[in-house]
Amino acid sequence: MKKIVSVIGGRTCNKEVEKLAHDLGKKLAKVVDILVSGGLGGTMEAVCKGFKAGGGLTIGILPGYDKKDANKHVDITLPTGLGLARNVLVVKSADVVVALPGEAGTLSEIAYCLQFGIPVISLKSWDIPGVIKVNTIEEAVKKTKQLLQKA
Amino acid sequence: MKKIVSVIGGRTCNKEVEKLAHDLGKKLAKVVDILVSGGLGGTMEAVCKGFKAGGGLTIGILPGYDKKDANKHVDITLPTGLGLARNVLVVKSADVVVALPGEAGTLSEIAYCLQFGIPVISLKSWDIPGVIKVNTIEEAVKKTKQLLQKA
Amino acid sequence: MKKIVSVIGGRTCNKEVEKLAHDLGKKLAKVVDILVSGGLGGTMEAVCKGFKAGGGLTIGILPGYDKKDANKHVDITLPTGLGLARNVLVVKSADVVVALPGEAGTLSEIAYCLQFGIPVISLKSWDIPGVIKVNTIEEAVKKTKQLLQKA
Amino acid sequence: MKKIVSVIGGRTCNKEVEKLAHDLGKKLAKVVDILVSGGLGGTMEAVCKGFKAGGGLTIGILPGYDKKDANKHVDITLPTGLGLARNVLVVKSADVVVALPGEAGTLSEIAYCLQFGIPVISLKSWDIPGVIKVNTIEEAVKKTKQLLQKA
Repeated sequence: MKKIVSVIGGRTCNKEVEKLAHDLGKKLAKVVDILVSGGLGGTMEAVCKGFKAGGGLTIGILPGYDKKDANKHVDITLPTGLGLARNVLVVKSADVVVALPGEAGTLSEIAYCLQFGIPVISLKSWDIPGVIKVNTIEEAVKKTKQLLQKA
Repeated sequence: MKKIVSVIGGRTCNKEVEKLAHDLGKKLAKVVDILVSGGLGGTMEAVCKGFKAGGGLTIGILPGYDKKDANKHVDITLPTGLGLARNVLVVKSADVVVALPGEAGTLSEIAYCLQFGIPVISLKSWDIPGVIKVNTIEEAVKKTKQLLQKA
Repeated sequence: MKKIVSVIGGRTCNKEVEKLAHDLGKKLAKVVDILVSGGLGGTMEAVCKGFKAGGGLTIGILPGYDKKDANKHVDITLPTGLGLARNVLVVKSADVVVALPGEAGTLSEIAYCLQFGIPVISLKSWDIPGVIKVNTIEEAVKKTKQLLQKA
Repeated sequence: MKKIVSVIGGRTCNKEVEKLAHDLGKKLAKVVDILVSGGLGGTMEAVCKGFKAGGGLTIGILPGYDKKDANKHVDITLPTGLGLARNVLVVKSADVVVALPGEAGTLSEIAYCLQFGIPVISLKSWDIPGVIKVNTIEEAVKKTKQLLQKA
C-alpha cells in the first residue's frame, strides 16, 4: 500500500501562497509518491502542479460529479458528488496532512484531522491546538518525512 | 416548512455542561419546533432531553447505521452510516446553529456553518472569527429567535 | 422513537402514478406518523401531499443543498448535498419502504433495502428477488402495518 | 487525466468467479492503467490481484475508516467511512464499469451506473435493462477498450 500526503488549502489564493503551494508540492514529491487534494483551483492547483513537476502522482477528490472541475494537474479524478462531505475523504486518505492558508473549508479539514488523529502540519494556516506548526517548506517536508516513516 | 435549530457539542460532557445543554434545550423549545442534533450521548442527549421537556420534536442524525445508538430523547432517528461526514447534515439542516462546548468534532461543524453561511451562536464553545459569541442561555435563545425570524 | 415509512419512486410521473402515490400517502398516514422521501417532485411530491392530507408529518431528504428544492408538502427538509448518496439515507431511515414506479434511482434504493435487510414492498415497481410484491394500495398499507408491528 | 475502469462484484465468491475476476483484471490491465474497486475481499480482491499481475495500478474505495480492511492488492486505499454510500464513488470514478456476479450491493452499483449514464458491462452479473451483456472475459475487455476510446 502506498503512503499518501494530503495538502489542504483555499480554493483561491494570492501569488505568494500559490508559489508556496507549488514549491511545497515539488519538494513533497521527493518524500512521498501520492498527493491527495480537493482537486480544484487555487492552492489545490498549485500544489498539484508542483507535485507533478517533482515526479509524483496526483489524486483529486472533487465535491461535484463533473471530472472537468478538476485542475489540469490532477492525474486521477474522483468525482464524489458529496459536496463538502468530501472533506472527510481528502484527509482520511492521508497518512500525513499539510495545511496551507485557507478559510472555513480548510478549518473543517484540520478539525477532521484532529478528530481522526491524523497528524496535520500547519504551514502559515490555522493555529488550532493539536496542529504541528511550521514556518517553512523545508520544515514541512522534513516533518512529513518523519511522520510518514512512523505511519 | 418548519424552522430548525441544530445544537452541536461534545459526545461526553461534565455535569455543568450537561445542565447548560438541558436548560438551553428546554428554552429553545419555546422559540422553535424542531431540534436537530447528532443524536448521541453527552451534550446531545442533554439538549434533546431539555428540548422534549420544553415540548419540542427532536431529530437525531447518527454517524452509524444502528438506530439503537440514538439517545432515548430522540423522536426521529436518521441512521446515516456516513461516519463523520454526517456532521455536514447536522448543520445544513438548520436555520440557526448553537454550539456548546466540544472538541474537534464540534469545531468541524462550526467550520461548516461558516462555509455554508449558516449563523452559528457559540455558547462557551470555540471562539473562531465569524461565530456569534454569547455568554448565557438567555442570550443564545434570544439571538436564535431573532435569526429564525430572518431565516 | 417514532416509526418511519419511506416511499420511493420517480422524480417525474404520469397522472396515474401521481394518483397512486397520493392515495397511498393518504392511507399510509393512518398506520404510521412519519413519512420519509427524497423530497423532490413527481411521485415524491404526490405521496407527501397525500400523507399530509392524511394527517402525517413529512420529511424530505434532498440530494442538494437548497431547501427550496423540496416540494411544498415537505414539513422537515434535510438538504444533504450528498447527491445520489442520499438514497442510502432515504431507505435507512425507514422501518418499512414502499417502492412505487421509478427508474434507476428507485432501483438503487430497492437494492439498498435488500442489502440492509429493510423490508421493501413493491407496488407496481421493480420486481427484484427479495421484494414484497403487492398489487393494490390496500395491500401495501396492510403489509406496511404488519411489518411496522414487527419492527 | 487517466482513464479508469471500475469492477464491481460480491464481497465473497466461489472459486469459479474468483478465477473469472482474476483473469478479467489481468486482461483489463492491457487496455487501461487504473482499476477502481470497493477494495475488500472476494471478487474485489481477485480482480485487484489480476490487475496488478497485468501491470496496473489499483485503487480501493473502502466503506469503513480502517485502511487495513483493504485487500493486499490495493495500491491506493481511500477509507471513506461512508458505509454503502461509497458505492456511488466506486462507479462515478469510472469511465467504464464491469459488473461481475454479486448480490444487492452490486445491483445498487449497476443502478447508479444507469442513473449516471456510465456504461456498465455485465459479465455473468445482473441482467437489468440498460446494461451491456457479454459472455466472456474477451468480450468484456474488447467492449471496455471501445468504450474507453469514446470516453
